[in-house]
Amino acid sequence: MNLDPAESRHRFATERVARLATVDASGAPHLVPVTFAVDGDSVYIAIDSKPKRSADLKRLRNIAENPNVALLADVYDDDWSQLWWARADGTASVITADAGADWLTPLGLLQERYPQYVADVPRGPMIRVSVTRWSGWTFTDDVKLLA
Amino acid sequence: MNLDPAESRHRFATERVARLATVDASGAPHLVPVTFAVDGDSVYIAIDSKPKRSADLKRLRNIAENPNVALLADVYDDDWSQLWWARADGTASVITADAGADWLTPLGLLQERYPQYVADVPRGPMIRVSVTRWSGWTFTDDVKLLA
Repeated sequence: MNLDPAESRHRFATERVARLATVDASGAPHLVPVTFAVDGDSVYIAIDSKPKRSADLKRLRNIAENPNVALLADVYDDDWSQLWWARADGTASVITADAGADWLTPLGLLQERYPQYVADVPRGPMIRVSVTRWSGWTFTDDVKLLA
Repeated sequence: MNLDPAESRHRFATERVARLATVDASGAPHLVPVTFAVDGDSVYIAIDSKPKRSADLKRLRNIAENPNVALLADVYDDDWSQLWWARADGTASVITADAGADWLTPLGLLQERYPQYVADVPRGPMIRVSVTRWSGWTFTDDVKLLA
């Protein structure tokens, strides 16, 4: 059964990992796992501060070319009655570290979820996804069983 | 560290779930979790036989509009030294159930991995992804520790 937007957002927000899909100018998708924090209808994603090869910033180049993105959290089990997923579709923008509170507030949200971001503060740009649609699905009709 | 194509394919092939990113004509990505089977440089994905609302076939409409797809398998752990992912980038085509061996052979591969597909045979179209690039990444430099 489909999950309503509120339940989809709730489930998404409590997961530890999601996958970010971006699209380049040629129409090819790019997919990476991301840590994240949800605040209302925004999803924040940090870029690790450790050195990255340029290929790792493909996600940022894609967002500059095409702001349409999707994020997916899902749970798999060989018992398919346990399957569910939650998705956030929206548009992405990049927040640079000189943006003051716009950068520090989501950093705090990420640090609350991931202690690694306290020990090793990500100092690069952050991705903000403005979610226009929350959706989700669960194999079983009885959501209570999964709650 | 980055994983070489052979190691990326090996890790991808042994996972139970992946995420499929497709892109529509407007350039917006669509993301769903999928079960799959790998055969060489092809990844096969079944469409469940149970009734679907048209929205669930968004992935097929997208492939008709734009064959570029990406698939991601990843493992998350709060101990980030355990993180890794493997990705398959390629182009997708749709195999209909009247395609004979081209449809029956991948169905057999899927049934070997997922007994649910023996009990409830997917009779709809199947997605074949021709992988043009296998890539992957692991947090730790010592791949042996994760193998």
